[in-house]
Amino acid sequence: MKIGIVGLGVIGGSFAEALQSAGYQNIYGIDHNQETLDTAVNMGIIKEGFLTGDSILPELDLTIMALYPKTAVKFIQANHDFFKDGSILMDTTGIKETFMAEMATVLPENIEVVYTHPMAGRENRGIAYAQGSVFQGANFLITPTEANHEDTLKKIEGLATEIGFGKVNRVSASFHDQMISFTSQLPHAIAISLMNSDHEKRETGKFTGDSYPELTRIAKINEDLWSELFIDNKTYLLQSIQDFEIQLNLIKEAIKTDDREQLKALFRRSTANRLKLEAGMDERKRKK
Amino acid sequence: MKIGIVGLGVIGGSFAEALQSAGYQNIYGIDHNQETLDTAVNMGIIKEGFLTGDSILPELDLTIMALYPKTAVKFIQANHDFFKDGSILMDTTGIKETFMAEMATVLPENIEVVYTHPMAGRENRGIAYAQGSVFQGANFLITPTEANHEDTLKKIEGLATEIGFGKVNRVSASFHDQMISFTSQLPHAIAISLMNSDHEKRETGKFTGDSYPELTRIAKINEDLWSELFIDNKTYLLQSIQDFEIQLNLIKEAIKTDDREQLKALFRRSTANRLKLEAGMDERKRKK
Repeated sequence: MKIGIVGLGVIGGSFAEALQSAGYQNIYGIDHNQETLDTAVNMGIIKEGFLTGDSILPELDLTIMALYPKTAVKFIQANHDFFKDGSILMDTTGIKETFMAEMATVLPENIEVVYTHPMAGRENRGIAYAQGSVFQGANFLITPTEANHEDTLKKIEGLATEIGFGKVNRVSASFHDQMISFTSQLPHAIAISLMNSDHEKRETGKFTGDSYPELTRIAKINEDLWSELFIDNKTYLLQSIQDFEIQLNLIKEAIKTDDREQLKALFRRSTANRLKLEAGMDERKRKK
Repeated sequence: MKIGIVGLGVIGGSFAEALQSAGYQNIYGIDHNQETLDTAVNMGIIKEGFLTGDSILPELDLTIMALYPKTAVKFIQANHDFFKDGSILMDTTGIKETFMAEMATVLPENIEVVYTHPMAGRENRGIAYAQGSVFQGANFLITPTEANHEDTLKKIEGLATEIGFGKVNRVSASFHDQMISFTSQLPHAIAISLMNSDHEKRETGKFTGDSYPELTRIAKINEDLWSELFIDNKTYLLQSIQDFEIQLNLIKEAIKTDDREQLKALFRRSTANRLKLEAGMDERKRKK
């Protein structure tokens, strides 16, 4: 099986490394940056690199596309006629509903696309930060379409498990986007707002324990990618922000009115919710 | 020098261990729980344990108090007459302005109190989670009073450095509380609100990467301690929450109006701010 990876950034590069570690030999890279391709060849994670898709796409049985949403659509438009008949295109973008609708208008008819979301992003970008181990035990989501065949989905699920993903699940595109707005985009919006609400010229680093550094790690953010994700998922993200604000307002009101019992009730609830989340995390680890 | 630690929870226990590791021999514990005292003796981090202060306080040259604010005030009231003449009392609570005002009304005149904040809390409570290594490289703040002598402050600063703290700084009580509302209490309020804004019965664990687990670690919270801290520091905390809300609203507005350039500007700012914080973190590590 010949596998191509389009976009050798931190995600694409990690896929190349994970596949190579899992024993796959024929992995090819497509990237607009020659230096990135050379690096990937030197790292031994791709066999050969290509600046365009025309010569290699016709040979690929599986094409893994690790591009920003808008770039992904443009890539398909530019390479519409080059895909191998009956080959699989695996998408990895972090939003689905609007993106899949846009993709549907440009996809060639001779391939089957599987929409996935490997939940292992990193705040650093570029192949230098690629490492297959980030997928170990991570969540892998598939948002199937009516055009998908069961054996194709099984093949991709098998591949995900083979390269180390923990839980592999199928969900609807809309539920995916709703959940992702809560577990991924909202935390980023929060981290950015926390970081930006610091006052100028305070030596904040003198006053930090673990909480502030931990809650702001993801405030270092790829602005090109995430501005797309935020706006493309605006409906769900605005709802998740609102849900969060309702809870923050409960804390504010309790503080204002010295309502210690209400604060304690909110803290007990968050503690219970967190313990429930941790129990699931342990379960995932046990399954590894 | 005989040192006593009042309250062998996660902070007091960590002090006992850190002092013991630094070579101090005569460390005594005071705690209302006999089991905790026995554990500390068995761990070898205190020489002897006491349920009350009356018999041991008169012998102590340094008393480290690791209690919740209200409990600390009650402890001083109950043990007013037992402190050794000229001994030092080191406080470790996480808020200062209101607490110090309350303490001033109950302190005995024959001791010198040094108000400190060792910034190394943990989401877990109790002696079982005590470990001196949590202080390694951590921030240590002192909020001096007019009654403090320079040599006493130097002694406490030296002790803090000796047991592993990184940056040791003196600040005013009001600036301490303002900064702590931002770097500690606001992150906790955020983590709790994020955790509590999840909808019931969603299998959220299937949809998480690193961000959500990381931003909610501190949503597991000691409700007795933190409800005190939130309410006692309400003025600064409400201001910090408002500063945060202003930034979150900027993101919301940019999403609503599809203003990608504004989003990118906010993301670039948070990235720059985070890199500045990380540079300070590295500096601290270099100094170790």
